Amino acid sequence: MNQVYFDNAATTPIREEVIEVMTQVMKHHYGNASSSHSFGRASKALIEKSRKTIAGYLNVSAGEIIFTSGGTEADNLVLRSAVRDLNVTHIITSKIEHHAILHTSQQLQKEYNISISYVNIDKTGQIDYAHLEKLLDTEKKTLVSLMHVNNEIGNVLDIKRVAIICKTYKALFHSDTVQSVGHFTLDLQEIPIDFLAASAHKFHGPKGVGFVFIRKNSGLKPLIFGGEQERGFRAGTESVHNIVGIGEALRLAYDNLESERSYVQGLKKHFIYRLQKEIPNIYFNGCSGDLEKSTYTLVNVCLPVSAEKSAMLLFQLDLKGIACSKGSACQSGSSQVSHVLAEFLSAEDLQKPSVRFSFSIYNTIEEVDYLISVLISLIQSKE
Amino acid sequence: MNQVYFDNAATTPIREEVIEVMTQVMKHHYGNASSSHSFGRASKALIEKSRKTIAGYLNVSAGEIIFTSGGTEADNLVLRSAVRDLNVTHIITSKIEHHAILHTSQQLQKEYNISISYVNIDKTGQIDYAHLEKLLDTEKKTLVSLMHVNNEIGNVLDIKRVAIICKTYKALFHSDTVQSVGHFTLDLQEIPIDFLAASAHKFHGPKGVGFVFIRKNSGLKPLIFGGEQERGFRAGTESVHNIVGIGEALRLAYDNLESERSYVQGLKKHFIYRLQKEIPNIYFNGCSGDLEKSTYTLVNVCLPVSAEKSAMLLFQLDLKGIACSKGSACQSGSSQVSHVLAEFLSAEDLQKPSVRFSFSIYNTIEEVDYLISVLISLIQSKE
Repeated sequence: MNQVYFDNAATTPIREEVIEVMTQVMKHHYGNASSSHSFGRASKALIEKSRKTIAGYLNVSAGEIIFTSGGTEADNLVLRSAVRDLNVTHIITSKIEHHAILHTSQQLQKEYNISISYVNIDKTGQIDYAHLEKLLDTEKKTLVSLMHVNNEIGNVLDIKRVAIICKTYKALFHSDTVQSVGHFTLDLQEIPIDFLAASAHKFHGPKGVGFVFIRKNSGLKPLIFGGEQERGFRAGTESVHNIVGIGEALRLAYDNLESERSYVQGLKKHFIYRLQKEIPNIYFNGCSGDLEKSTYTLVNVCLPVSAEKSAMLLFQLDLKGIACSKGSACQSGSSQVSHVLAEFLSAEDLQKPSVRFSFSIYNTIEEVDYLISVLISLIQSKE
Repeated sequence: MNQVYFDNAATTPIREEVIEVMTQVMKHHYGNASSSHSFGRASKALIEKSRKTIAGYLNVSAGEIIFTSGGTEADNLVLRSAVRDLNVTHIITSKIEHHAILHTSQQLQKEYNISISYVNIDKTGQIDYAHLEKLLDTEKKTLVSLMHVNNEIGNVLDIKRVAIICKTYKALFHSDTVQSVGHFTLDLQEIPIDFLAASAHKFHGPKGVGFVFIRKNSGLKPLIFGGEQERGFRAGTESVHNIVGIGEALRLAYDNLESERSYVQGLKKHFIYRLQKEIPNIYFNGCSGDLEKSTYTLVNVCLPVSAEKSAMLLFQLDLKGIACSKGSACQSGSSQVSHVLAEFLSAEDLQKPSVRFSFSIYNTIEEVDYLISVLISLIQSKE
C-alpha cells in the first residue's frame, strides 16, 4: 500500500461532489452576499439555502444557524459571549474537552475572574452525572460545556440527559459537537440545548467553515464586530464557496447516514476483532472498544510496546505510509502526553503508546488489514 | 450587455488560476496541517509556502504574517488585543473608517471604558495631520487605526507619514489595508507600522481568508483560543485551500501589478473623462476624481438627479444589469446614508444619489461605455 489515511478524526477528505459545487460557486458566484444587486443576491441565496439545509437536519429554524470560520471560532463565540453578555460567572466542563473549550475557558477566567469546575470522569472517560448535578447546585450563573463525542477516545455523551439536567438547574448548555454533527442524528427540538458548535471538515466538507447553533432569544452577541452579516452575529464577508460546501457536505452526510455508518462501523469492528485476536495485551482507551458507548469512527488503542519502541512508533507508521495520531491534531507536533489520556490512564499505561485510528467511508477493509499487519510487525520487531 | 460588474471594491471575481490551485488542494491535500504525518506535513508545507510568498511581497519575515478568516477578523484581533493585552486606553481613528474598525472600537469602549478620538477630515475626506498630532499628544497609551485606501471614496492615506508620526509619539499604528494590499506596493521595512489587515477577496482571491501583519515582539495575543495553530496567534484548523488561494492571488496581483494598474486606471480615466464631458453638474466625492490622490480602482460619483429619482437609481441600474453600490457592501441592504459621505457632504448633496463604481482587470472599455450610456439615459429620463 502506498499511503493510508486513518486520521479522519483530525480531518476528512472532501467529497468530490462538494469540491464540484464549491468550484462552480467560485467560478460563477462571486458577488458579495451583502450587496443588493443581482450578483450579491445570488450569493445571498446560496448562503441562505445552505443555512436552511443545515437547520432542517438539526430540526431548528434557519435563523438559529450562524456560519463561522470553524468549530474553534464557534466555541469561542459561545463561551466569550456567555461570560461577557449573559453574566455567566461559572463554567462547568471536563478535563477531557478539546482545547478550544479548555484554553478559552482559562482565558476567560483570567479576563473575567470566573470560576471553572471540572466534572469528574471515570477510568473509561465517562462523566459522573451525580457530580455534574452537585456542581450545578450553586447560585452562580453557570454554563456547562461538554462535548458530544470525544475527539480522542470517541466516548459518546448522553447529550439529552445533560441538556435536561442543565435545564433543571437553570444552567446554559453548550456542546462542542464537532465530532458528532454529520455522524449522528441530532434533533434539537428533542434536546433542550442552548448552543452547539460544528465544523465542516470533520464530515467531508471544506476546512475553514463551521457553524454555531444559537437557540432563539439567547441574547448571545458577536465575537467579531463590524458589518451586519449573519444577522448581526458574525461580521465579515461571507465565504460563499465554503458555506455552500458545508451545506452540501452535511446534506450528503445525513442523506447517506445509515449506509455510511454501517460501512464505517464495519471497518471499526473488523479492526477491533483482529487486534484482539492477534495482539495479546492490547486494550482500548476510554470507551473506544465498546461499539455501543463510542463513535463508530474511531478507536484509541494502547499497544503493548516497550517505552523505547514507543517513542518511534508513530514515526515508523508514517514511514509505512500510515497516517494516524496520538490524540488531537492540535497537539500532534509535540511529544507531550495527550491531556485527555493523562486524566484517566495509569502512569504505567501512559508510558505505552496510545494511538488513535479514525475511519471514514474512504477507507477499505484491505487498508485495515494492511494496518494490522504493519502493527503486528512493529510490535514483534526486535529493534 | 447582459450583466456588468462594477462593484470590485465590495469583492472581486476570483482569478481562474487561483480557483485551479484551490481545487487541486481540495482534491489532493486534505491533511490537517497540525498533524505530524505525511498528509499533515504536505498541508503545512503549502501553508508555509503561501505565508512566505506574502511575507516576501511585503518585505517582512514569514513569522509576522498570521492567516485569519478575513479582514474583519484581522481588525478585531488587533484592536481587541491592543486594548486587552497591550494596555491601550485610547484609540484614534476617523469617522470614515470601515465598520470593522468603528464598531469594534465602540464595542471595546463599552467593555474596557477606553476613549476614542476621531481625527478631523476635510471636505474631500483627507485627514488633518496636525489634528492627528494634537490627539497623539497625550499620556494615554494610544493605538491609531487609519485605513490606507478608503473603501468608499478611494482616498489614499500617506501611510508612511502616519506611521512616522505614530512612532514619534510612541503610539501603535494599525491600518486596515483591505483595499490596498494587492493593489499598491507596501514595503513594511520602509513603513514603521505595527499591524495591518488584508483580505483575499479584494484582490481576486477567495472569500473567507485574510491575514494580519503583526510586527515581531509586539506582544499581541489571540482573538480565538484553542489549538496552537498560526504560531499560537490564531486557533482553529487552517483552511488550506483558502490559504493557498490567498498566496496565489497575491502573487499574481503583485507580479502583474504595473500592467494591471495601468489597465484599470485607463478604465477609470475614461469613465471620468466621459462623465465630465457628457453629464453636466456631476462631481466626484472625496478625492476619487483625482487620479493622484485616490486609488485607481474606484470612483464615487454624485449624480445630478432629483430626490425622487435618486431613491430608485440603484434599482434601475440593477435592472439594466449593472452592479454598483452606494457605499460599502455591509450597508447596501439598508437605505441609510453612507456613514462616510455623511461626514463631509452637505445636507443638499446627501439628497442626491452618490454611487460607487469600482473596476478590475475583468472590466472592459465597452462595459464602461455601456454604463455611461445607461447613466445618461436614467438622468435624462422624465419619470
